[in-house]
Amino acid sequence: MKVLVVGANGQIGQKVVKLIQESEEHSPVAMVRKNEQKESLEKEGIDAVLANLEDSVDELAKVLQGVDGVIFTAGSGGSTGADKTLLIDLDGAIKMMEASEQAGVERFVLISAIGADKRENWSEEIKSYYVAKYYADKALEQSKLNYTIIRPGALINEPGTGNVWAGTDFEYGKIPREDVARTVVASLTAEPTYRKAFNLISGDTKIDEAVKNL
Amino acid sequence: MKVLVVGANGQIGQKVVKLIQESEEHSPVAMVRKNEQKESLEKEGIDAVLANLEDSVDELAKVLQGVDGVIFTAGSGGSTGADKTLLIDLDGAIKMMEASEQAGVERFVLISAIGADKRENWSEEIKSYYVAKYYADKALEQSKLNYTIIRPGALINEPGTGNVWAGTDFEYGKIPREDVARTVVASLTAEPTYRKAFNLISGDTKIDEAVKNL
Repeated sequence: MKVLVVGANGQIGQKVVKLIQESEEHSPVAMVRKNEQKESLEKEGIDAVLANLEDSVDELAKVLQGVDGVIFTAGSGGSTGADKTLLIDLDGAIKMMEASEQAGVERFVLISAIGADKRENWSEEIKSYYVAKYYADKALEQSKLNYTIIRPGALINEPGTGNVWAGTDFEYGKIPREDVARTVVASLTAEPTYRKAFNLISGDTKIDEAVKNL
Repeated sequence: MKVLVVGANGQIGQKVVKLIQESEEHSPVAMVRKNEQKESLEKEGIDAVLANLEDSVDELAKVLQGVDGVIFTAGSGGSTGADKTLLIDLDGAIKMMEASEQAGVERFVLISAIGADKRENWSEEIKSYYVAKYYADKALEQSKLNYTIIRPGALINEPGTGNVWAGTDFEYGKIPREDVARTVVASLTAEPTYRKAFNLISGDTKIDEAVKNL
């Protein structure tokens, strides 16, 4: 599967690209905004394309030519304002869904956030961020795409353990970014994750098993 | 018709409340956030309720008991940040739609902004505001409510002329807030506006005729 990684320069995105590059099943195309990012990826032998989530749906659809699936792990990040949250996390994500439908790309894996699906779980400090996630998730569920929505708990930078808890109950907890990236890649062709959303935190089950038991 | 005006303390909202109060067909219930606003409205003989768009859908549904229609003219305003745009203009509006469905209120008139329905028309300076409007409008169109979405041009404070242009073509222009308020009230029971969105700027047609010709 040739997979476009949107947000390839982000903390999870970089790990996802690396894992796909190492896998035998799939190959990555890293979508980045800056030419220096593109060149540095290409030096490592990784396919990269220049595009911006503020581009039009038509322009984004061009980037999707020849691609079999999308991993959307872009986020405006904590340092930018809520205006970028609206433009990237909400409208950017939904434009990429529309572009995928337009380009005939069926598989779409979206990284969301734990609790995003229920208003009563939104933490007060970053409530507006959850609004964007909530409506992006909802749009994907209403789309015709073969989606998976992964909602990790609090992201930490510790090394991954390879063991997680994945499910639809609300279980608050932490998870290393590395384990999120592994779960994303393991989900790509795991049928039990198709047209499904699930929460993800550190746990006792091997990732491959966890995605098969969904 | 007993009409809940959401954003009753806003510039258009105040005019809408006054017009409904003066009308013979309808009576207003002004939804405001502060007790002093409620008391000052009640002194003028206007029904008012205290509620906040950051409340839950269940709480908002309570305010809708006995109400026949909603006019949503709330907006976080230019002085607040985009986080409030996400919470009020997007999630607040959609929560009010869900509350209306829950409370069995069918009629819902939403004030949006000209150009909000097409990404290519979004002005660069307030693009994130248009994102919120776009998805709120879309949610209303996908709801079961009997909606009208009114998308006025640039709002000015000059006295109204009573003459407008209303239609689905994109015509950029200005319009006094007073004429927007009149059009909102005229739309309430005008069948040609049901389940329809239209643009509104100053023009040559009397408001009552304009809404009948949609």
